[in-house]
Amino acid sequence: MGAVKSKRVPRAVREQQMLDAAVRTFARRGYRAASMDEIAEGAGVSKPLVYLYLNSKDELFSAVIRREAAALVAAVTAAVEPEAPADRQLWSGLTGFFAHTAAYPDGWAVLHQQARTHGEPFALEVAAMRAEIVEFVTDLIGAAAKEAGCAGELADREVAGLGHALVGAAESLAEWANSPAASGVYGAGERPSAKDTAATLMNFAWAGLGRMTDGERWSPGG
Amino acid sequence: MGAVKSKRVPRAVREQQMLDAAVRTFARRGYRAASMDEIAEGAGVSKPLVYLYLNSKDELFSAVIRREAAALVAAVTAAVEPEAPADRQLWSGLTGFFAHTAAYPDGWAVLHQQARTHGEPFALEVAAMRAEIVEFVTDLIGAAAKEAGCAGELADREVAGLGHALVGAAESLAEWANSPAASGVYGAGERPSAKDTAATLMNFAWAGLGRMTDGERWSPGG
Repeated sequence: MGAVKSKRVPRAVREQQMLDAAVRTFARRGYRAASMDEIAEGAGVSKPLVYLYLNSKDELFSAVIRREAAALVAAVTAAVEPEAPADRQLWSGLTGFFAHTAAYPDGWAVLHQQARTHGEPFALEVAAMRAEIVEFVTDLIGAAAKEAGCAGELADREVAGLGHALVGAAESLAEWANSPAASGVYGAGERPSAKDTAATLMNFAWAGLGRMTDGERWSPGG
Repeated sequence: MGAVKSKRVPRAVREQQMLDAAVRTFARRGYRAASMDEIAEGAGVSKPLVYLYLNSKDELFSAVIRREAAALVAAVTAAVEPEAPADRQLWSGLTGFFAHTAAYPDGWAVLHQQARTHGEPFALEVAAMRAEIVEFVTDLIGAAAKEAGCAGELADREVAGLGHALVGAAESLAEWANSPAASGVYGAGERPSAKDTAATLMNFAWAGLGRMTDGERWSPGG
């Protein structure tokens, strides 16, 4: 049956169905426990067809990571208004990030929790995507410091550190927003909206950055 | 030779040497590529002795995670001055966190990058440790909001979100501070000190929190 069905569907469409099933399975079971049987069943095709199209579990995982990373970067990029002031760009980028990770929780789980550890090629793809986002955020923080008329006030090393801090904060919030724990705070079955989550982080980050560019510092003595 | 040597060293000491070697190997090679041969060699013992003491690669990995997670929580806990105001507690906790992750980069890499994905038992141990730290930080943020006389101003859901944001920011900064990329900003061979990194995050977080408890909000219109 599977073989007859698969002839009617173009290869490109079938491959996307296989990747959809693979994202679900990898996110829920982890790489090691994920079975090609479950992925084939989820895609409604025979296991040999999955191997014919995508060769091996490793290559399937790699294709999943590439697709999910590209989709996340595209969503963030599309959300940003390139001509807007730095704070507005950061806000729209964060909103795009939280909207995408909420809409594709399995894709986000694979990128954030699964991909980093399974050997060089996977880890490097995710690291490259992350570096791209960190660079974008770091540039915006630098631009914001400049717009506030305080270039030099924030040293380069602090700007670089803040870029990493903000991306890590966003990753952690996205994981939390998709977790059952967030439902505990927001009420059963409810999740924070992408805008709520973006607003929480933006308030925190932008206010903090504003005070820093104003030259205010927290000091252990104070 | 190994067998003769191993008889002279108490089992508890030998086990710690095996765990030391295992942390290095898991951090550098990842779980899958890590070989028991390399771990045994690193510990200066025979491979059968590693199996005799720690049973399997899985159990060795589990023992590593438990030891490294306990050490990290102990370092953070010891650094905090429990009677101090909330900001001072957070500052000392962050300093303890960054000092420990800088001193034990391999342990941190295993906890942060390796442990989350290798099946339920490992992921659950790390998740439990992380939940403990998130709860501590969230309580401090809540206490700070209260000290600032602004309880109610920050909704519970925002406080919970900020706890996750701050922990994610700290994790990301610790990874960055240990990476070659940080050397690029700080000069060859140099790394940000634990106090520098804690100060960057504390300035950012505390200033942001201060503005939020003052009722200031970033708004997309502004």
